[in-house]
Amino acid sequence: AAHGARKMEDYGRFLALLASSLLVGFVSVILSLVWVFHYREGLSWDGSPAEFNWHPVLIITGFVFIQGIAIIVYRLPWTWKCSKLLMKFIHAGLNTIAMILAIVSMVAVFDFHNAKNIPNMYSLHSWIGLTAVIVYSLQLFLGFAVFLLPFAPVRLRVALMPIHVYSGLTIFATVIATALMGITEKLIFALKKPEYSASPPEATLVNCLGLLLVIFGSLILWMASRPHWKRPPAENAKILRPIGATPEGTEVESTMTNSSNADKSDLRSNTEAARKQNIKFDEAGQRSTM
Amino acid sequence: AAHGARKMEDYGRFLALLASSLLVGFVSVILSLVWVFHYREGLSWDGSPAEFNWHPVLIITGFVFIQGIAIIVYRLPWTWKCSKLLMKFIHAGLNTIAMILAIVSMVAVFDFHNAKNIPNMYSLHSWIGLTAVIVYSLQLFLGFAVFLLPFAPVRLRVALMPIHVYSGLTIFATVIATALMGITEKLIFALKKPEYSASPPEATLVNCLGLLLVIFGSLILWMASRPHWKRPPAENAKILRPIGATPEGTEVESTMTNSSNADKSDLRSNTEAARKQNIKFDEAGQRSTM
Repeated sequence: AAHGARKMEDYGRFLALLASSLLVGFVSVILSLVWVFHYREGLSWDGSPAEFNWHPVLIITGFVFIQGIAIIVYRLPWTWKCSKLLMKFIHAGLNTIAMILAIVSMVAVFDFHNAKNIPNMYSLHSWIGLTAVIVYSLQLFLGFAVFLLPFAPVRLRVALMPIHVYSGLTIFATVIATALMGITEKLIFALKKPEYSASPPEATLVNCLGLLLVIFGSLILWMASRPHWKRPPAENAKILRPIGATPEGTEVESTMTNSSNADKSDLRSNTEAARKQNIKFDEAGQRSTM
Repeated sequence: AAHGARKMEDYGRFLALLASSLLVGFVSVILSLVWVFHYREGLSWDGSPAEFNWHPVLIITGFVFIQGIAIIVYRLPWTWKCSKLLMKFIHAGLNTIAMILAIVSMVAVFDFHNAKNIPNMYSLHSWIGLTAVIVYSLQLFLGFAVFLLPFAPVRLRVALMPIHVYSGLTIFATVIATALMGITEKLIFALKKPEYSASPPEATLVNCLGLLLVIFGSLILWMASRPHWKRPPAENAKILRPIGATPEGTEVESTMTNSSNADKSDLRSNTEAARKQNIKFDEAGQRSTM
């Protein structure tokens, strides 16, 4: 009973963090719209500053908020009864939407720069931002090929999962850092009479938006890095787990057991072999715990 | 023998990453000096721009490079024969140096701003930067009180270790993000004829410095988040570990066994109790695996 109560308390803590991050992410999107519509030129697609304005709105909506949700989608306890394959599709789908929005938002900036004869790709923001979009696309492509398609051998999945998790979280943090640089650039360039240094209301609003992005990122990274909030391993994996091993860190294994049902009986034909396999997967799963 | 070869290969991989991050960190410090001495006004303490220049140099040296080394100091295999207490002093000492350098570097900016009548604390860079220094100081104080002084009960250490690890890595990433914003600000403000957008050599050099900071951060976070590169648990802990449990994730336990030698025999008087204790510590250790 005490164990059950602790579990419920832990569940409540997860829900509170999830609600907080959804709220912070949602308010960030709203603030980006207030910025663009109340203080700037609104949104359009005509080479004017209103076309540029798609850039912050789509980056915050897609590359920050939707990417953040995509990262923690496996952690939602009510999805644990869904098949792992369905959850992978949702994870990949949300990341694909985020990638498309990021690319459209970049096109808006290039278009605006070209219309106004402003050079492209000179700033640190543009260097790191473009790199992030390219690495993110590679990550999505590799994740699709290795973890979603049924062709990659179990060994490769086990080896790549920790790298996939690390890259995902590092790209996410880099995207937020790039957004902060972008906010800094835009406020310096756009605010004249009064300047940024005079702290007009627009500066205060957008600084708060920047703070919210840092808080959103911190919440997502906390939820993503708690091993006890991971999706539990598949049932058959549980049966075969060696005595004394903890139930944590078997995400990779459950990935495997769902997506390679065909080889499963092969793989687990010998109990001793399965035991060893389990230990190895457990270790691999722990490595993936960023 | 195959196991030993794999261990050596893994050791070699760690050394390669360590050498890379030392090199990238070292080159970053050099580039900050080249920036300040070759392109800017050098260093002095007289309210001139040369006083401001202490800011990037000390932040990159202390708050990025030294903090990064402090984070991975427990991972250096040749320190595993040293006592955990000694390593804690080195970890705390390096972080204290980083904190002092960060504070001095902030004083340099305030001094420069006041001398030139430039407002303080208006930018997103200053908001997040000051917050990072305050949270970093709290983290250092709390870490000292809980993990270094011998007063905190084992239960509190176990509960706080995952938060300590998460906060440490999140602050580190935030500091790098703040440095990138600072670079962006400074290049926009300082470069006139030719402007930042004309990509003069100074802009290219400092953009490269920014890229190196991102690479340095990524390398440190990778090394810090691999559980199999953790300092191994103390010997007595190893003996008491339940069969089947992996040797990873017992950092917290080894912290405990070194710092509370007095209660150790008490704590482990009953083998079954020790076994349960071990399982719990293992779980706590895994949670701390960011």
